[in-house]
Amino acid sequence: MRVFGIDCGTEFTGYGVVEVDTTSRNPRLRPLCAGAIKLSRRDPTAERLAIVYSELTGLMQMWEPAVVAIEEVFFSANAKSALKLGQVRGVAMLAAANCGLPVAEYAPLSIKSAVVGYGLAAKEQVQFMVARLLDLERAPEPADAADALAIAICHIHHAQTAEGLRQ
Amino acid sequence: MRVFGIDCGTEFTGYGVVEVDTTSRNPRLRPLCAGAIKLSRRDPTAERLAIVYSELTGLMQMWEPAVVAIEEVFFSANAKSALKLGQVRGVAMLAAANCGLPVAEYAPLSIKSAVVGYGLAAKEQVQFMVARLLDLERAPEPADAADALAIAICHIHHAQTAEGLRQ
Repeated sequence: MRVFGIDCGTEFTGYGVVEVDTTSRNPRLRPLCAGAIKLSRRDPTAERLAIVYSELTGLMQMWEPAVVAIEEVFFSANAKSALKLGQVRGVAMLAAANCGLPVAEYAPLSIKSAVVGYGLAAKEQVQFMVARLLDLERAPEPADAADALAIAICHIHHAQTAEGLRQ
Repeated sequence: MRVFGIDCGTEFTGYGVVEVDTTSRNPRLRPLCAGAIKLSRRDPTAERLAIVYSELTGLMQMWEPAVVAIEEVFFSANAKSALKLGQVRGVAMLAAANCGLPVAEYAPLSIKSAVVGYGLAAKEQVQFMVARLLDLERAPEPADAADALAIAICHIHHAQTAEGLRQ
């Protein structure tokens, strides 16, 4: 199974692809790519959204994941920043839908629990564990890329648990 | 000049196309179409966003406007609803960008001022004036369609004022 994780943000939108061999008895997580799309504040909003959409679409077409995992957002500093974040999030979900991919949403608590084992873990702990789980020397940068990998790992954990329950 | 107005919403997204003959000495506003995209709460968010995107893209390709006008949003009931509205708004702006159309944003106060002449006008007054300015027997329904026409009219007023200042 190959999972495309997205960590949406108004300045950086992180992405990361993680693969797991579900047929193996001892499945290992393998990172395929990770990075972040940086948006310039100088560009008009519509152009910034078009960049996010086309970059994500290109990456999804290249890596051909089975599913896209994205963070659920429940609250934000204020309504204005929530609106701006929503615009990026909408475009990210659209990219998945237009690539014919299902979208799975996970709460921040679930993501941290899946990666660190503790829902209220600090950002640094998440990054440390992402590197560890993916057998990387250090967490990928920027932090948004590592967060996107964490979201992908969270989906794999949930899918494995669901699979385990079915067996 | 042909303007495509969009009134974004999480349930209904209104649209309306208004044309004005800028070469005429006494330019009249002409409504070309108006309607609303209704979204089902039962559909997953990504599918709903894909519907908004494909419908708006199709309408923009059909009506070939010069510009897309959209309401600026400064505040919302809460961050959660702002995020949801932002998702729809992001997809609407992306449709414009991917059709190669510039996006103009107007504050609610500007829209009401342009249509009613009073920034704090009630919703009903806006609808009444939209019908009047476009020479319609009554305002189109649902209200979101009339609101989208109001946004298009607002852009035409601003463009005409800017043009008048240049002459």
